[in-house]
Amino acid sequence: MNTIKNYIEENKERFLNELFELIRIPSISSIEAHKPDMIRCAEYWKKLILEAGADKCEIMPTKGNPVVYAEKIIDPKLKTVMIYGHYDVMPVDPVELWNTPPFEPEIRDGKIWARGADDDKGQAFMHAKAFEYMVKTNQLPCNVKFMLEGEEEIGSPSLYPFCEENKELLKADIILVSDTSMIDKDTPSITTGLRGLGYVEVKVTGPNRDLHSGLYGGAVANPINILCEMITKLTDSNNHITVPDFYKEVVFVSDEERALMAQAPYDEKEYKAALNVDELHGEKGYSTIERTGIRPSLDVCGIWGGYQGEGAKTVIPSTAHAKISFRLVPDQDYNVITERFKQYFESLAPKSVKVEVTPLHGGYAYVSPIDMPAYKAAEKAYQTTYGKRPIPTRSGGSIPIVAGFEKILGIKSILMGFGLGSDAIHSPNENYPLEQFFKGIETIPYFYKEFAKENIA
Amino acid sequence: MNTIKNYIEENKERFLNELFELIRIPSISSIEAHKPDMIRCAEYWKKLILEAGADKCEIMPTKGNPVVYAEKIIDPKLKTVMIYGHYDVMPVDPVELWNTPPFEPEIRDGKIWARGADDDKGQAFMHAKAFEYMVKTNQLPCNVKFMLEGEEEIGSPSLYPFCEENKELLKADIILVSDTSMIDKDTPSITTGLRGLGYVEVKVTGPNRDLHSGLYGGAVANPINILCEMITKLTDSNNHITVPDFYKEVVFVSDEERALMAQAPYDEKEYKAALNVDELHGEKGYSTIERTGIRPSLDVCGIWGGYQGEGAKTVIPSTAHAKISFRLVPDQDYNVITERFKQYFESLAPKSVKVEVTPLHGGYAYVSPIDMPAYKAAEKAYQTTYGKRPIPTRSGGSIPIVAGFEKILGIKSILMGFGLGSDAIHSPNENYPLEQFFKGIETIPYFYKEFAKENIA
Repeated sequence: MNTIKNYIEENKERFLNELFELIRIPSISSIEAHKPDMIRCAEYWKKLILEAGADKCEIMPTKGNPVVYAEKIIDPKLKTVMIYGHYDVMPVDPVELWNTPPFEPEIRDGKIWARGADDDKGQAFMHAKAFEYMVKTNQLPCNVKFMLEGEEEIGSPSLYPFCEENKELLKADIILVSDTSMIDKDTPSITTGLRGLGYVEVKVTGPNRDLHSGLYGGAVANPINILCEMITKLTDSNNHITVPDFYKEVVFVSDEERALMAQAPYDEKEYKAALNVDELHGEKGYSTIERTGIRPSLDVCGIWGGYQGEGAKTVIPSTAHAKISFRLVPDQDYNVITERFKQYFESLAPKSVKVEVTPLHGGYAYVSPIDMPAYKAAEKAYQTTYGKRPIPTRSGGSIPIVAGFEKILGIKSILMGFGLGSDAIHSPNENYPLEQFFKGIETIPYFYKEFAKENIA
Repeated sequence: MNTIKNYIEENKERFLNELFELIRIPSISSIEAHKPDMIRCAEYWKKLILEAGADKCEIMPTKGNPVVYAEKIIDPKLKTVMIYGHYDVMPVDPVELWNTPPFEPEIRDGKIWARGADDDKGQAFMHAKAFEYMVKTNQLPCNVKFMLEGEEEIGSPSLYPFCEENKELLKADIILVSDTSMIDKDTPSITTGLRGLGYVEVKVTGPNRDLHSGLYGGAVANPINILCEMITKLTDSNNHITVPDFYKEVVFVSDEERALMAQAPYDEKEYKAALNVDELHGEKGYSTIERTGIRPSLDVCGIWGGYQGEGAKTVIPSTAHAKISFRLVPDQDYNVITERFKQYFESLAPKSVKVEVTPLHGGYAYVSPIDMPAYKAAEKAYQTTYGKRPIPTRSGGSIPIVAGFEKILGIKSILMGFGLGSDAIHSPNENYPLEQFFKGIETIPYFYKEFAKENIA
C-alpha cells in the first residue's frame, strides 16, 4: 500500500494538468450565463472518471445542472462507498482583488491559486486519483460510486429530487465527502457537525421613484435608512438574534462537550491577526469555536440601493435590497426559521415602506457520530499518513445536501476534508496547498482499506 | 412687449431643435468619462449665446469643467443682470427605469422627456431665448451677463475659485437663476430659501478579505451589519438627527412665519398618492413643508457591500460603503456639520471594524429677502403672465453656489424657477412641460423691464 506515494510521485505532473483543465472551466452555478460551462465541466468529469477506471459513467439530467454518476461494482456482496463532490464553484467578484485571474490556475508558494482550487474541484479530484490508483494497482477492496453535482453552491435544488428518484441506483454503505477543512496542515481533523443554512433576499420599497433628496429629504421614508434600521433590529446588544423563537429548537450542547471543544487549538491573537481585526464580534457567552460550530448566526451577505457610482448624487432611492443568511444548528429546520424570519422582518417595517422577503435557499444541519465504522476507518487512514489521531470538529459551514442524504437515502456521510482555513474558499485568491492535495490522494486509499476490513471482519 | 408671445410662436420649432441638440450631449459631471461631453456642451452654449446676440462669449478654463461667460453691455451706467445656470446634468442610473433613452429627448403628453429637460438645460435655455428676443427686437433695457458652469451637480468646486478670481468681470446688480420649481402650473411662486448640503462617503472595513459566512459567521464583525447599526444610530425614534450639536446653529423660525408657511397649498393625501406611500416619515413636531423647507435632514443616498448579483452567495464581505447627505438650513455651516458628523460617525464604530469618512461636497443655505427690488420685479413679471401674485416659498433643494455668490461677489440672487414637482429631476424620466418652458421665455423679459424701470426711477 505504500506504493501510493510512488504512484503520486510518478504521476504528479499529469494530475496537476488534469486538475488545471478542470479548474479552467468557469462553472459558476449561480450565474445563468455559465450554463454551457456546467455541461462542459460535467463532460470533463465523465472523461476523468472513465479514464480512472469506472465501469460506466453517465451524465444524468436534472431540472438544473446534470449529475455525473459513475460506478465500479467489483462484487455486489462487498460494501459500497459513494463519493460525493460538486463541480460547480462560487462567483469570483470582486474580481479586482484577485492577484491572478480566477480561472487561470497557477502554482505559487507551493499552492494552487484559482477559484475551485480547494472548493471543490481540488478536493473532489483527489478522489478520482485515489480511485485510479486503486483500480490500476488492483487494490480496490470494495465497490465505488461517484455522484458529482453542479449546484452545491446554490443549495443543491436538483439533487434532492435526484436522490428521491434514484434511491436504488444510489444505494451505498457510506458517502465519502472531501469538501471541508482540517485544523491545520499538521493537525488532521474530521468534521462531525455541519451548520444548516437559510438564505433570503429582502426588498424595501419607499416612494415609487427615485426622489431628489433636497426636495423630499426629511419628509419621506428613505428605504435605505429603513432597511438599515430593520437589519439592526435583527440582533440585540448581546448579538443574540431577535427573531422570535429563533433558538427554540437549538439542540442543547452539554458543558462537558463544550469543555472538550475548548481543547481544540485556537489562538485568538493569531485568528485576529489573520483577519486584521482588532476585536472579534459575536454572541455573548460563547467562544469563537462555539459561535461558529454550535450556535446559529445571522449575516447580511450583500446590500445595495441608491447611487453607488463615482462622486455625489443626491437621491432618495425608491428601493433598497439585502441578501441575508442564517447559519443553523441541529435541530433548526430552515423552512421553519425562514418563515419566522419573514414574519418578523415584515413586522419590523413601518407603514411608510413596503417589504418583500424572498427565500432563496436552505439546508439542514448535520451531525456525524464518532462511533460509526466509517468514522473509525477515516480516523485510521489519517493516523497512517499523518502519524496522529484526527480531532473531531464541528464546522460552521454548510453542505446542506449531506443532511439530505441521510433524510432521503438513509446513508450517513463521512467528511474527510483536506482544506485549510487559509484556502480563502468563496473569496478572492482561493488556493489549495499542493501538500494538502497530494496528502489527500495518499490518505483516501487507506480509508477504503480500513472500511473494507471492517466489512469483512 | 406683448410681441414676445408672437416671437415664441414663430420660433417654437427652432427653439426646441436647439434645446434638443443641447440635451443630446450627455454632460454628466460626476462621471470622469464624460469629460469630452462637458467641452462639447460648453462649446454649444457659446454658439447659442453668440447667435442670441451677446457681444462676446468665452469658454473660460477652470481646474474642472470650464465656465461659459458671455456679456452684452449696452451702457455701463445701466444696471446689469447676470444669468446663472449650469450645463451639467445628473447621472441617469437606474437607466432601465427610463421609458425612453435619457439623452434622446422626446415630446409626449405635452412634455419634453430627457435628462436635463428641466434641470438645468431646459430652464437655462429659456434665458438664452428671452435674451435673444430682447436683443433682436431692440428692447434690452439693461446690461446682461451669462455665467454657465459645468459642475453644479457635483457642488460647483471650480466656480468658487472662479468667482474669487473674476470679481471685476462678474460685477452685476442681481443674479437671475432658473433652477427651481413653482408650486404648480397655475400657482407661480418664487423660491426665497434654499437648503445647504453636506455630502460624505463612508467606508466600514471588517476582516481583510471576504470570508465564508459559514466558517466565520457569528465570530467576526460583518461590516454590512455594523454599517447598518451605525446608520441607524444617526437618528432617534423621533427622527431627530443625533449628531451632537447638529441643530446648534439652526436659525429659529417664528411661530408667525410657520403659520404663514402653513398657508401654502399642500394636500397630504395627494402628496402620498403621488409617491405611492401609505405614510410619510419625518421629524416629529414639524409639517411636511417645514421638514423640507426650514429643517435639516439626513439621507443615505447610496449603500453597497457584499454580493449583489443573481442568486445566493454566502459571504461576509470585507467592506461596506454608503453615501450620506445632509440638507442644511441657515445658519448651519457645512464644513462644521461635516466635521461633527465625521467625529460622531467614527465614534459609533466598534473596535471590530475600521471606519473612514470622506467629505465629497457641500454648500451653504441661502435666504432671499422679499423686499429687495429684484424680488419685486420678479413678482410683477409673474403677475403679468400668470395673472396672479407669486407665493414666496422655501425649497428643500440646494444650489450651494447661490450662497457662494453672496459670500464672494456680494450679489444677491433671485430664483425664478419654472419647474414643477412632477418633473422628476435627478430621477429616471425627467421631464419638462412645454407650457412651463414657453411660459418661462415669456415671463423673463418682463423681469428685465421691471428691474430696469426701478433702476431709472
